[in-house]
Amino acid sequence: MMSSEDGYRRALCCGLGVVSRAVSLDRWERRYAARAQGMVASEVRALFAVASRPEIVSLAGGMPDVAALPMDVMAATMSDLVAGQGPTALQYGSAQGDPGLREALCAVMAMEGITAEPDNVVVTVGSQQALDLLARIFVDPGDVVLTESPTYVTAIATFRACQADLVSVAMDDDGLIPAALAQTIARLAAAGRCPKLLYTVPTFQNPAGVTLAAERRGAVVEICQRAGVLIVEDNPYGLLGFEGGPMRPLRADAPEDAVVYLGSMSKTLAPGLRVGWALAPPAVKDKLVLAAESAMLSHSVFAQLVVQRYLSTQPWADQLKGLRVMYRARRDAMLDALAVAMPAGATWTRPAGGFFVWVTLPDGVDTRAMLPRAIAARVAYVPGIGFHPDGQGANTMRLSYCFPPPDRVAEGVHRLGRVLRRELALLDMFGRPASPA
Amino acid sequence: MMSSEDGYRRALCCGLGVVSRAVSLDRWERRYAARAQGMVASEVRALFAVASRPEIVSLAGGMPDVAALPMDVMAATMSDLVAGQGPTALQYGSAQGDPGLREALCAVMAMEGITAEPDNVVVTVGSQQALDLLARIFVDPGDVVLTESPTYVTAIATFRACQADLVSVAMDDDGLIPAALAQTIARLAAAGRCPKLLYTVPTFQNPAGVTLAAERRGAVVEICQRAGVLIVEDNPYGLLGFEGGPMRPLRADAPEDAVVYLGSMSKTLAPGLRVGWALAPPAVKDKLVLAAESAMLSHSVFAQLVVQRYLSTQPWADQLKGLRVMYRARRDAMLDALAVAMPAGATWTRPAGGFFVWVTLPDGVDTRAMLPRAIAARVAYVPGIGFHPDGQGANTMRLSYCFPPPDRVAEGVHRLGRVLRRELALLDMFGRPASPA
Repeated sequence: MMSSEDGYRRALCCGLGVVSRAVSLDRWERRYAARAQGMVASEVRALFAVASRPEIVSLAGGMPDVAALPMDVMAATMSDLVAGQGPTALQYGSAQGDPGLREALCAVMAMEGITAEPDNVVVTVGSQQALDLLARIFVDPGDVVLTESPTYVTAIATFRACQADLVSVAMDDDGLIPAALAQTIARLAAAGRCPKLLYTVPTFQNPAGVTLAAERRGAVVEICQRAGVLIVEDNPYGLLGFEGGPMRPLRADAPEDAVVYLGSMSKTLAPGLRVGWALAPPAVKDKLVLAAESAMLSHSVFAQLVVQRYLSTQPWADQLKGLRVMYRARRDAMLDALAVAMPAGATWTRPAGGFFVWVTLPDGVDTRAMLPRAIAARVAYVPGIGFHPDGQGANTMRLSYCFPPPDRVAEGVHRLGRVLRRELALLDMFGRPASPA
Repeated sequence: MMSSEDGYRRALCCGLGVVSRAVSLDRWERRYAARAQGMVASEVRALFAVASRPEIVSLAGGMPDVAALPMDVMAATMSDLVAGQGPTALQYGSAQGDPGLREALCAVMAMEGITAEPDNVVVTVGSQQALDLLARIFVDPGDVVLTESPTYVTAIATFRACQADLVSVAMDDDGLIPAALAQTIARLAAAGRCPKLLYTVPTFQNPAGVTLAAERRGAVVEICQRAGVLIVEDNPYGLLGFEGGPMRPLRADAPEDAVVYLGSMSKTLAPGLRVGWALAPPAVKDKLVLAAESAMLSHSVFAQLVVQRYLSTQPWADQLKGLRVMYRARRDAMLDALAVAMPAGATWTRPAGGFFVWVTLPDGVDTRAMLPRAIAARVAYVPGIGFHPDGQGANTMRLSYCFPPPDRVAEGVHRLGRVLRRELALLDMFGRPASPA
């Protein structure tokens, strides 16, 4: 009989197999560019293989529940498009993206209060690609990029692939702390360094689930403007708020050239179409177009026209309301379950929208070390350390409520609670590491 | 009345508008990374806006004629896919790409004699993205990348975006000259430099239309193997040969770890799906997967499954035969027209497949300067200088026969012939620059 320890080990090996294999057998290893040294498998990626088994409640992935989409309508949209415009839709397109879609995306941004011209929009392969292109345009090796801490894990990978020096700015439950931002910039300036970018997810942040308070937004923009730091505002969740109307993005009230705004249809329509975009100051937009051309020639015209048609023919704004109701019920299920299942000393955020809750556990709990035990207990999460550029957060984790239905969300949290209680009991038995004062 | 000179100027300004605007207004200019300095608008891109007007015969673009695709079948494939597998097809996928598609792509490569495992394939946004990811993995600023001369224009942009030092290797009508390759590597070695990559399009080359002779292929691989130079074999046109069976790619007969092979469905199915791939040695494949994740998280699962379904349900191999017949007729139309229309002293290649003929004109003709006059005469081409990393080729041009029907191809060549005769007459009148001995 296999012990549960064996189960843990097998689960961990399975998930991390790619990493260990990459180390061996590599004839070309000494020929890689310096930037390639930073390309290592992420926590999240290593985990997906394990967490996708059906018996496991995955609170790990940030996938939207696309099954909520009217598939018949989507199928008809695609089929009409190919029948009517096939030779255009299946051809190469421009590197900037389809003009009709760019106009439709301006209307999407207008729902949040942004006034934008289609000519300043560049369509990208998810907003991830926009982030990647921006990193390549702005970041020389050693350049400072400011981020929240914790921050979006693949942004860390992307900036590291350009050899950025990531510097964290403190957050609280109201998002970035303006005074901390100003102090960080001043400290860097004293050392002769000026950050190139501030990367921020101000609304329903991934991973922390917090939102930059409205009254802090002007200060963040002004501090960056004064310091000559370009703001990269990543806003994939802005239209998925559970309380009241949408928050005004930084871009809505900032000077046009202060912010590059990143949007995405991945959470509000379907990630499988890979349609994201950047709204950028004109000169930066020109560079983005050139970088996009070099990166992929052009995005899929087909995918762009599907989104454009869908937005112009379907009651998408009403469907968004449905998504908000659906995700709110899942968030509520998670918060209710956390209140019951979490051990004393655990704290967590209360997201007003988006997909994620951030949990901080008592000192001494190591969520990365605990993960195989959680998987053996049939629940998965993402250890928090990977979201911290500075290696903090060993006792934190990201929980997603976006994909499983409410009862599964609750079940997952209860399973996690049991794992945590056992973990804390073991720590009590064998002593927890002294907390660093 | 507008003079035709005005017409030329307007046409040129229209095409190059993006470039001049990028220079002005740029608050962030001093903040760009060093690599962004190399991001400047290409000849080809600047031209597209002008050459797409219906009255102009464009021998410029390298677009396949996707109207030849059975649109009803494609529409049904997509609609069935969404109806049956929507929640998977429209979700995020793995960074490496769909396993079923990777298996199908191995079968495509087997048609050319390549034996490959799906696990060594990475699906990318066109083969362009594979090229971009490889550049990022291998090229440090100043590293040498060997290319043919002329070579694929966007490869130049992509390698330059990684600050590569591009070194050209001489070609003739049988492709890369092995002795020249060996000499170039030896010359670099004498200066203490070892090229990281050889980028080559050995079969039906873009832009020159030449093919590396079968008897040279082993030598090219062996020279690179001995020198520790990884070969990047870009093969978008390999299945579009007009004479006999497909050439065996370098990858078919080389050691597994000598070559990264790039394939594409853009010319044989539809560029609008943006499905290309890399077949790489395992360790390089692992790096490609990580780089792809950082660049875009994942490719469109939908687009990948469309290609996979299309290949598994349609008589694609038969359709390829139809494409070969269609493109051969257009090549013949071009070669026939060139024989009649070209002035004395012009020479051109005779492609055995693919999309392009390369024309070399008498010394003194400047094809870039001549382009607005050609556009005013309602024909477009791509000036050759942009395909040369070393600034050679002012008297060369690329002509594409892939998109217009045969009679339009012929008409375009005849228009071009008239422009050239006038150009040469003017040169005779005002004297041509002395050729540099």
